Amino acid sequence: MSRLRVHAFSISVDGYGAGSRQNRENPLGVGGMGLHEWMLPTRSFQRLYGDGAGETGVDDDFVARSFENIGAWILGRNMFGPVRGPWPDDHWKGWWGANPPYHVPVFVLTHHLRSPIVMEGGTVFHFVTGGIEGALHLATAAAGDRDVRLGGGVATIRQYIRAQLVDEMHFAIAPTLLGSGEHLFAEIDLPALGYQCAEHVAGARAAHIVIRREATD
Amino acid sequence: MSRLRVHAFSISVDGYGAGSRQNRENPLGVGGMGLHEWMLPTRSFQRLYGDGAGETGVDDDFVARSFENIGAWILGRNMFGPVRGPWPDDHWKGWWGANPPYHVPVFVLTHHLRSPIVMEGGTVFHFVTGGIEGALHLATAAAGDRDVRLGGGVATIRQYIRAQLVDEMHFAIAPTLLGSGEHLFAEIDLPALGYQCAEHVAGARAAHIVIRREATD
Repeated sequence: MSRLRVHAFSISVDGYGAGSRQNRENPLGVGGMGLHEWMLPTRSFQRLYGDGAGETGVDDDFVARSFENIGAWILGRNMFGPVRGPWPDDHWKGWWGANPPYHVPVFVLTHHLRSPIVMEGGTVFHFVTGGIEGALHLATAAAGDRDVRLGGGVATIRQYIRAQLVDEMHFAIAPTLLGSGEHLFAEIDLPALGYQCAEHVAGARAAHIVIRREATD
Repeated sequence: MSRLRVHAFSISVDGYGAGSRQNRENPLGVGGMGLHEWMLPTRSFQRLYGDGAGETGVDDDFVARSFENIGAWILGRNMFGPVRGPWPDDHWKGWWGANPPYHVPVFVLTHHLRSPIVMEGGTVFHFVTGGIEGALHLATAAAGDRDVRLGGGVATIRQYIRAQLVDEMHFAIAPTLLGSGEHLFAEIDLPALGYQCAEHVAGARAAHIVIRREATD
């Protein structure tokens, strides 16, 4: 059965998944890039974006795992780009260039209709106006036997957690403090929603936590 | 110069330093004991409370460090005990028995006067009604050349952080979720107060973070 998974999502020691004042120059908000520094030297990341000669180890294992058996993605609109409100034109096609690192269908949550965009390398961006459950329905169908990865951002993950729709979440606690921004867990009682820590593994540059939901209904 | 240090203070992945519904049976609140499981097998803890045959390694190093060069402690009243309001009598002498693990003067924050209590092994509990700055003044004088350790709990640490009076804080992120209780960093902007992550080290049972304040004034 297809699962909904969050992977390699970075949070600060003080619990923020993105900094404040996000814009086109700072898509992760002020200080937000520091959340992801643990990932950049890994071999799995360098194979996607660099020369392929990165480091192996725990941090790399978690990046590699994040791409395994994924048949579709779901992204919040703010993770797809900085455009807000109705789409002014078809110019914006994501942060990732002509060949995005997804290579499967990607369902973007939005309140504004837009035609799908076929990118190079197998990525197709679909724009879904049916809410988080509608997007999950479409993504699960597209993923077939494989799982659906929930990419973020913070607000989107929080919605799916509250609806008890996420099966597994891997968070990397980065050794940085943001002080303000989007807090991942504020006002969310994870144990009351059925979530527990299932794994904790220390990497060289981040602490990795896997949280799973035990089906209770 | 004497510094104010927090050590071996455990928080959950979702940021709580104590669970909800604290009482005499659950001094750390519901689920709160899970925060400290990383510490119990360490040799330094077992030397204090067990048979001395505990484990060495990163987790143990941090427990050992927490006792180094400490000349006095500060505790919030709720950490000293479950009694609230005026002291009904002199019966309650802390959670720790006749010979508490401090062995130096301990300054307990309270709004209600009480005479000092001399315990076995060098621990003397002093009850301070002069607020957090008054307690720090007395503890610093008592500590001499050594540092003052701020033991907690959460509300007390938050007060000292906001007053920018803590110099160094070691937190152990325990692989557990509490969902509710006392949140350590909520509404506190650590970088704005001058705090930064100075160290991060992975132990077998917890992720260790050291936060320091750079004096800016």
